[in-house]
Amino acid sequence: MQELLVVKIGGNIIDDEKQLNSFLSDFATITTPKILVHGGGKLATQLSGQLGIKTNMVNGRRITDIETLRVVTMTYAGWINKTIVTKLQNLHCNAIGLSGADVQLIPAVKRPVIDIDYGYVGDLNADTLNTPFATVLLNNNITPVIAPISCSNGELLNVNADTVASVIAIALSKAYKTTLLFGFEKEGVLKDVNDSNSVIHEINTQNAEALKADGSISAGMLPKIDNAFNALNKGVQQVYIAHASFIKPIAENKTGYGTRIAC
Amino acid sequence: MQELLVVKIGGNIIDDEKQLNSFLSDFATITTPKILVHGGGKLATQLSGQLGIKTNMVNGRRITDIETLRVVTMTYAGWINKTIVTKLQNLHCNAIGLSGADVQLIPAVKRPVIDIDYGYVGDLNADTLNTPFATVLLNNNITPVIAPISCSNGELLNVNADTVASVIAIALSKAYKTTLLFGFEKEGVLKDVNDSNSVIHEINTQNAEALKADGSISAGMLPKIDNAFNALNKGVQQVYIAHASFIKPIAENKTGYGTRIAC
Repeated sequence: MQELLVVKIGGNIIDDEKQLNSFLSDFATITTPKILVHGGGKLATQLSGQLGIKTNMVNGRRITDIETLRVVTMTYAGWINKTIVTKLQNLHCNAIGLSGADVQLIPAVKRPVIDIDYGYVGDLNADTLNTPFATVLLNNNITPVIAPISCSNGELLNVNADTVASVIAIALSKAYKTTLLFGFEKEGVLKDVNDSNSVIHEINTQNAEALKADGSISAGMLPKIDNAFNALNKGVQQVYIAHASFIKPIAENKTGYGTRIAC
Repeated sequence: MQELLVVKIGGNIIDDEKQLNSFLSDFATITTPKILVHGGGKLATQLSGQLGIKTNMVNGRRITDIETLRVVTMTYAGWINKTIVTKLQNLHCNAIGLSGADVQLIPAVKRPVIDIDYGYVGDLNADTLNTPFATVLLNNNITPVIAPISCSNGELLNVNADTVASVIAIALSKAYKTTLLFGFEKEGVLKDVNDSNSVIHEINTQNAEALKADGSISAGMLPKIDNAFNALNKGVQQVYIAHASFIKPIAENKTGYGTRIAC
């Protein structure tokens, strides 16, 4: 099977132009088919602040009212997505910026209200992806750059970028040997969040519970780890949580970079 | 040759949700290949105002500083583009939202400073369009929805939506019998701007100069007329300036709707 690299980059990389440019320069040189998923939370929070819209978070997830939906759609699918596409085009990487709504690439279901009303927030299912379209793009050396916005029944919905990366990797792992990289601004999952030398090189089903119990996996990292295990369990061949700058060695299957998640 | 419909809708249609929904319902039913180009000036002006960014216009064109570029990219390529895509998907029209930057669909050249520095503004050339990609989409029954944002040398650029529609129609007129419709909120080009019964049913090279001289073609309409003649001269088979609600009769080649531009 041909290799595929699905990379998600987080807000701290996007907010730091030097790190973003450095990452995109590395990303553009990768010759295997590749997909980039981006978040962008801080820019949205900043714009919400400027517009007097209160940012409301529960369990690390943004509550998305209609004003916030507008801000995240503008920020994620507009400014960040097109800025990244333009930078990649300038690096001779034929990028196409998409949201989950376009060609129903990643259809969502509006999250039902149980305890919390998340508002315009969608949940995703790898089974409903428009994989034929994604495959046509990849086969034509086009690199999808995906904003975490989708839709259902005519409404735009805010979706989690980690989950977008995860469901894309799952859906395409049937056709490609897929590596999923959650790229962020730290060397990997750290045993001591203040010590960049404390990278946990492997998290697997054996040590995960203990690491959660002793607090090594922090609250913010939990959904990422859950997404990573879910991806592995559903067929993704390799999953890493690592500094975005480790993309090249990870794409080259070198060991010792970041945190590898294993079953 | 197969028929193609390229429709541009202006800000007054986009700003009015009832008119927009009605237009999109009609647009979605058209079975020939079709492309939608949208503007969105007023929403951008409104957001600029909320953010304290001054809107600067010269000769009906926006002067685009970096803050304004961000606002128009967020508004056009983000909120408006994805809102339209979502509405069309809900109408069973398989829409894909793109800017000119994506897959270099419509590459731009930054406008050189002669008398006026327009800032981050791009000019377009029908010869450089990524027509193979557009053709693949159309052949697969996918409807491009295009925001008037492009790029050059790693910079995003604001481009004129009428010109986007015009260069797309020109580039594709070699492969399709192309009708270009500039859809807006008036019945057509009006001899008396306050009288919706004063539609000029045909503007051609014979009567255009006289209509300009007697003021029937107003200042705001001039670039649209120039775009229309340019499109006709470069191969587009039919050009109309008409109320967006006339899309179905125009697509069905019925006469008497809006203003037909002819050589």
